[in-house]
Amino acid sequence: MEGDQVEKMVLTKNGRKTAVDKECDGEENKSVESKVYMDYNATTPMAPEVIQTVTEAMHEAWGNPSSSYTAGRKAKEIINKARESLARMVGGRPQDIIFTSGGTEANNLVIHTALRHFRESQVLGQDGPGEDHKRAAGATPHFITSNVEHDSVRLPLEHLVKEHMAEATFVPVSKITGQVEVDDTIAAIRPTTCLVSIMLANNETGVIMPISELSQRIQILNQNRMALGLPRILMHTDAAQMIGKGRVDGQDLGVDYLTIVGHKFYAPRIGALYVRGPGVTTPLHPMLFGGGQERNFRPGTENTPMIAGLGKAAELVNKNCEDYEAHMKEVRDYLEERLEASFGKQRLHLNSQFPGAKRLCNTCNFSVWGPGLQGQMVLSHCKTLLASVGAACHSEKGDQPSSILLSCGIPYEVAQNALRLSVGRDTTKEDVDVIVEDLKQSVAQLEQNRVT
Amino acid sequence: MEGDQVEKMVLTKNGRKTAVDKECDGEENKSVESKVYMDYNATTPMAPEVIQTVTEAMHEAWGNPSSSYTAGRKAKEIINKARESLARMVGGRPQDIIFTSGGTEANNLVIHTALRHFRESQVLGQDGPGEDHKRAAGATPHFITSNVEHDSVRLPLEHLVKEHMAEATFVPVSKITGQVEVDDTIAAIRPTTCLVSIMLANNETGVIMPISELSQRIQILNQNRMALGLPRILMHTDAAQMIGKGRVDGQDLGVDYLTIVGHKFYAPRIGALYVRGPGVTTPLHPMLFGGGQERNFRPGTENTPMIAGLGKAAELVNKNCEDYEAHMKEVRDYLEERLEASFGKQRLHLNSQFPGAKRLCNTCNFSVWGPGLQGQMVLSHCKTLLASVGAACHSEKGDQPSSILLSCGIPYEVAQNALRLSVGRDTTKEDVDVIVEDLKQSVAQLEQNRVT
Ligand SMILES: Cc1ncc(COP(=O)(O)O)c(C=O)c1O
Ligand SMILES: Cc1ncc(COP(=O)(O)O)c(C=O)c1O
Repeated sequence: MEGDQVEKMVLTKNGRKTAVDKECDGEENKSVESKVYMDYNATTPMAPEVIQTVTEAMHEAWGNPSSSYTAGRKAKEIINKARESLARMVGGRPQDIIFTSGGTEANNLVIHTALRHFRESQVLGQDGPGEDHKRAAGATPHFITSNVEHDSVRLPLEHLVKEHMAEATFVPVSKITGQVEVDDTIAAIRPTTCLVSIMLANNETGVIMPISELSQRIQILNQNRMALGLPRILMHTDAAQMIGKGRVDGQDLGVDYLTIVGHKFYAPRIGALYVRGPGVTTPLHPMLFGGGQERNFRPGTENTPMIAGLGKAAELVNKNCEDYEAHMKEVRDYLEERLEASFGKQRLHLNSQFPGAKRLCNTCNFSVWGPGLQGQMVLSHCKTLLASVGAACHSEKGDQPSSILLSCGIPYEVAQNALRLSVGRDTTKEDVDVIVEDLKQSVAQLEQNRVT
Repeated sequence: MEGDQVEKMVLTKNGRKTAVDKECDGEENKSVESKVYMDYNATTPMAPEVIQTVTEAMHEAWGNPSSSYTAGRKAKEIINKARESLARMVGGRPQDIIFTSGGTEANNLVIHTALRHFRESQVLGQDGPGEDHKRAAGATPHFITSNVEHDSVRLPLEHLVKEHMAEATFVPVSKITGQVEVDDTIAAIRPTTCLVSIMLANNETGVIMPISELSQRIQILNQNRMALGLPRILMHTDAAQMIGKGRVDGQDLGVDYLTIVGHKFYAPRIGALYVRGPGVTTPLHPMLFGGGQERNFRPGTENTPMIAGLGKAAELVNKNCEDYEAHMKEVRDYLEERLEASFGKQRLHLNSQFPGAKRLCNTCNFSVWGPGLQGQMVLSHCKTLLASVGAACHSEKGDQPSSILLSCGIPYEVAQNALRLSVGRDTTKEDVDVIVEDLKQSVAQLEQNRVT
């Protein structure tokens, strides 16, 4: 059983992992088993160029970026170069990029900002043009998000609601398209709405949300709201799953904030927040106070090597994104073909194909219909495939079906059997052949166990 | 001029940096100049073993620690091993360690926690034994700290005060000992005091604060306060500058929280917070909400390679701390000797020697008396020495003397000329000889410029 082994995984050139299994008693098992990783939505390895950049920076750019001598300035230069690469990646200017410890922090920072901005505009509004408006001082800010967001958006909002510090509408995605509908979102807007936060692409289904349409509608509304003295609605998108898999342009998307998560695009485990003109065009209220780094928006001595690596990964995306996308789409489509051929159109449910909705190039969420074929069961009987049944941070939930899939209208029994396979830059069609065979054997074994 | 050069710095074995200077026009200057880094309080390079560990983890442990397959479990194991090493380093248990993005976050998290804990105990207190007490619901929590803290303690408190969310007393350090006096701190306590946060060792003077004495007094007070239904006073120390330079034991110190900052002890740019029984014995309220990592106290996909490196650096401290300390003390004492011999006891002010106060083994803060010898001026005329005039994050402040030194009773004219030299594990007496000569020449040149 997997649970009794300690495995040493090494990323090989073709993206396969060479796994050296050891027995639990420590005695080395000489057989080398090959695993195929198809969980790139959970995390990616760092690209070799990124590891190289991080390693160089650890050796050569360890000075404190705030130090005025050369070692410090060198670090600062590296950071600013990374900032430029990130800006280019998301269609912003270098000053629009704020480095954070990761996506969770970036998402929380946006929510924190909207809350504070609302409060401040309430205070200002009292003697401004909105005074005669029926909105009471001390009104509760209202947030709009979807019911398929990552926990780092959902939970901070639920926390604020529980604390009576905010109200929130979790707009349900359409059970037909898997998308948040623009009209539903606009209909949820109240005079007190301070933020709309909708992810760019869902991590489980891969469905891409209509962010630019939504932003356009909100921009028009904001013009009217300004005239009425109502608070501006800020617009955020969590682009964690989209970057490196498709074009991301903050300006085209029309958002005020956009979350960048390194470890989803072969970068280190830090992140960044794109803010359109932070502190000038768009409010940004720090959660942390300290040594003034990141123009006081996010103080703390900069993690130079990780930032350098994030910059390098952004460069790779800037250069190769179209190739990455084309390759992953080809492999993912081949995967879906092979799955259909193996399990039959009747038994195979493709949970991420919604009519009319675009989706990520790399994600295949599917279920093999039948009793006793719960996702986790199927996975645990696979010898080669490494994948998941949903978001990694929900991996403790066991056999419960993904609430995201249920929200998208996938029937309970189908959702229970769901597997999320997400391919990467180096996944090959041979990998697909291997894991489809693996899946077939796993399913066959589970069915046989039921019979006998 | 330094400002016109791009320098490539490589850490060599003996801790010296080999700097390859290039002219600003890009033409390579063949001369290889050696710099001596004496700013280890600003930041340290990562130890070679730490770089090795980070590099290995980047290659081998890139799985999502929440993933249930082996790649994820391997990452989780590495993280837990690091947690054990950190716990050992500060005399805690593994469950007392919460990884953070750095010291700034750790310090802010403690302040955030104390604020929330106070509010919650107020609500509880209303129908508890404290009801008859004269404390009004909605009372403002009171914080105590010193006037020589790092900005990541000072500024969050100033922010809360400005927002009328808290009151704060910045206890002045003694101008005789450079220490926060226990009696002064105890005298500042009010019924509404929720947190005492005093650093373990100051980053500019190196003065070590009487934390265990203070904790003992507060523990006794807390017993009485409990009986009266008054909120417990939580006790925090920022140990950023002490770790790796002297013994640190949370239990002996008697603190509830202790801040750990990687890049001050040859570890990566992340940190951790020691919390004595988080959520059980000691409150801990998260600032971020998300995927449940770090038992919900600090969610966000774990930065495995950096955490692995932090653990390795802690192991090195656990093994070698006494040797490090002895070596650095010897070199620092030799430095002070040589400075006195070179500039004369009359002209040389040792700003970090206070009667009766212990201080860090590696820090030498001094001034060479005389007009036109401001710290920044002296440094900019040095050819070899890399050091600073105070905290790195204040490096923009130019010629203004350090407020920390002024608070410690150093006269304005002396503080203006101050330099902070902090030695490291690999600094040698030969390095000292080189930079003392460098300083002498710098001072001589500045004096000559004044005459001519
Ligand atoms: C006393 C002290 N506390 C905290 C910090 C942590 O700061 P950072 O988060 O910038 O690493 C530092 C170092 O800069 C420090 O010297
Ligand atoms: C949609 C989405 N948002 C945000 C995140 C960022 O989370 P973290 O901070 O754990 O990297 C993730 C990945 O886990 C994600 O899939």
